[in-house]
Amino acid sequence: MRTRVTELFGIEYPIFAFSHCRDVVAAVSRAGGMGVLGALYFTPEELELELKWIDEHVGGKPYGVDVVMPAKYEGADLGDAEELLGRLQGMIPERNREFLEELLAEHGVEPSTESAGRALLGWTDATARPQVEVALKHPIALLANALGPPPADVVEEAHQHGVKVAGLASNARHARKQVEVGVDIIVAQGTEAGGHTGDVSTMVLIPEVVDAVGADTMVLAAGGIGRGRQMAAGMALGADGVWTGSIWLTVDEADTQENTRAKLLEATSRDTVRSRSWTGKPARLLRTAWTDAWESERSPGYLPMPMQFMLISDALRRIGRSGDGELVTFPVGQIVGSMNQVKPAAQVVYDLIEEYVESLERLNAITEG
Amino acid sequence: MRTRVTELFGIEYPIFAFSHCRDVVAAVSRAGGMGVLGALYFTPEELELELKWIDEHVGGKPYGVDVVMPAKYEGADLGDAEELLGRLQGMIPERNREFLEELLAEHGVEPSTESAGRALLGWTDATARPQVEVALKHPIALLANALGPPPADVVEEAHQHGVKVAGLASNARHARKQVEVGVDIIVAQGTEAGGHTGDVSTMVLIPEVVDAVGADTMVLAAGGIGRGRQMAAGMALGADGVWTGSIWLTVDEADTQENTRAKLLEATSRDTVRSRSWTGKPARLLRTAWTDAWESERSPGYLPMPMQFMLISDALRRIGRSGDGELVTFPVGQIVGSMNQVKPAAQVVYDLIEEYVESLERLNAITEG
Repeated sequence: MRTRVTELFGIEYPIFAFSHCRDVVAAVSRAGGMGVLGALYFTPEELELELKWIDEHVGGKPYGVDVVMPAKYEGADLGDAEELLGRLQGMIPERNREFLEELLAEHGVEPSTESAGRALLGWTDATARPQVEVALKHPIALLANALGPPPADVVEEAHQHGVKVAGLASNARHARKQVEVGVDIIVAQGTEAGGHTGDVSTMVLIPEVVDAVGADTMVLAAGGIGRGRQMAAGMALGADGVWTGSIWLTVDEADTQENTRAKLLEATSRDTVRSRSWTGKPARLLRTAWTDAWESERSPGYLPMPMQFMLISDALRRIGRSGDGELVTFPVGQIVGSMNQVKPAAQVVYDLIEEYVESLERLNAITEG
Repeated sequence: MRTRVTELFGIEYPIFAFSHCRDVVAAVSRAGGMGVLGALYFTPEELELELKWIDEHVGGKPYGVDVVMPAKYEGADLGDAEELLGRLQGMIPERNREFLEELLAEHGVEPSTESAGRALLGWTDATARPQVEVALKHPIALLANALGPPPADVVEEAHQHGVKVAGLASNARHARKQVEVGVDIIVAQGTEAGGHTGDVSTMVLIPEVVDAVGADTMVLAAGGIGRGRQMAAGMALGADGVWTGSIWLTVDEADTQENTRAKLLEATSRDTVRSRSWTGKPARLLRTAWTDAWESERSPGYLPMPMQFMLISDALRRIGRSGDGELVTFPVGQIVGSMNQVKPAAQVVYDLIEEYVESLERLNAITEG
């Protein structure tokens, strides 16, 4: 296959695979796609180790790094990470902490044993910038930002390193803004996607974004893409490639916790919900007792980004290790309904391409009559 | 083009156009697609006149009729239409009537001058059955049901008249149920669609439904389809054709009220919302002061189907005729964002096909490299 993005990166297939797991990133890049490592949960030192490992295992193929630098968040005026974290911790109301601990206790989740020091690694300019610095010391091909346009100086710095910049957008206006600050590739993400997401569907969004950004900007289709037919649909809508995330959570190589993986394999496409209970901004999560509780009458409501995640991050780890499992949730898209089998990442890439080709052959047969 | 549905109906393009306007239905069928008249708002006598007109103006081309026979609704145990209406009217709380009249008065909408006798024409078995009887006396090619599986005896009667039956479904389980009662064609409708809609997007839903119903059942893709790229995407997902609705609201021939048409032409893809304020079941509507008010703290909440629509139907007519226009709403999908131009219905059909072909040519060029 040959599109502007395969040409730009010298990859075989226009398939971008977002994952927090280095094994998945390396496997997809080796299979001819482009793995993109989500840096969010790593300290700069940890990220350095992950990227070193990828460099050694990616077989010289291109890969990318994804950071989260939201344009707007509480405490954005504070540049110093420690000062910021301290102030934000102090702003979390006691009622919200109490609600959370009660919820955990009801489901048999054990009390915390760790300090909350790891609560905030991405999500803010101050905490994400050191991740960018680490990433740009490695031979990455792509730097992606998951929430709004990255700061203009970050775009410039990436370009100086010969690194292309991608930005996620969930509407045409945001996509145009990103092009204005120099973003090379727009990841246009429909509401069916996992994680932070807008309310316009992929079907409607992609042509809007393609038309809005003009012929010089490349667009990847994201949201609801996990099979070859969906890849063909994304490309038919005008995209230069596809951006996928959820489907890599259940591959062989994924380090997804076992109770989470089991829930994902069982879930149907109707078992997700857009919820503010993860970060304070609407994000699509697996619908479980967790999301229901935060929506219930006893819920104290959501804190603004990044405080909601600061509040819950330690709880999420504890839920993964103990309790009845009913609170286990995870950011995942509606495609979770077709994630029913554990396969190696490379096989997922090849299956995508095989079904893509079948879909196109069918379209040609229909159209020629 | 040649798919199972073009073969079945002897039509040129697998484009189904749902409209309450007979002129649109006849125009789309004459242009090579298949117009489907929404019968919901017509008395049996009115429907007879509409279908007679279509018979005289459709140039011998096939067309269909769409009714609304929900599987579940309040008062479903009452077979007699008059008894049903009387009982349901009595069940509407005074508080809901008061909220509505206050809302209308705030926006300068004049008091009612009509009786509420026309409040319920479809929505129930008892009121929709006479519409089916009228429809089957005309040379229709398709009978569609907009909410759940039609009653088995209605499917059988249609088949005895040589009429194919289509049912709308918003998830794979419902689609399978419809196949079990004999439905020939599943209209798989994603959350981005206008009117009653589920929460799974078209991108995710179509492959699920296609796989769930098996190779013997035809599937039309609905929701978010208004341009040729979207038609190509729908077909790439595995559908045999596309079902469209919103895009016909702003064509030359449409009898859409002027204030509604103006709002639709201005709206973006983000200006819709899934709301129970129309019928009591979630339906995607243009987001206006109407939908906001029903979601606000002062809202009395929604009545179950069909009482919510009984409560509001007279109000909707009055809003169309008077007041400041801010309450004007309408069932419409997210595709409303690309409905910016008034064109003849036939031109919309030809534009769909032209962009569809362009999209496919682009896909072939990409794939061959």
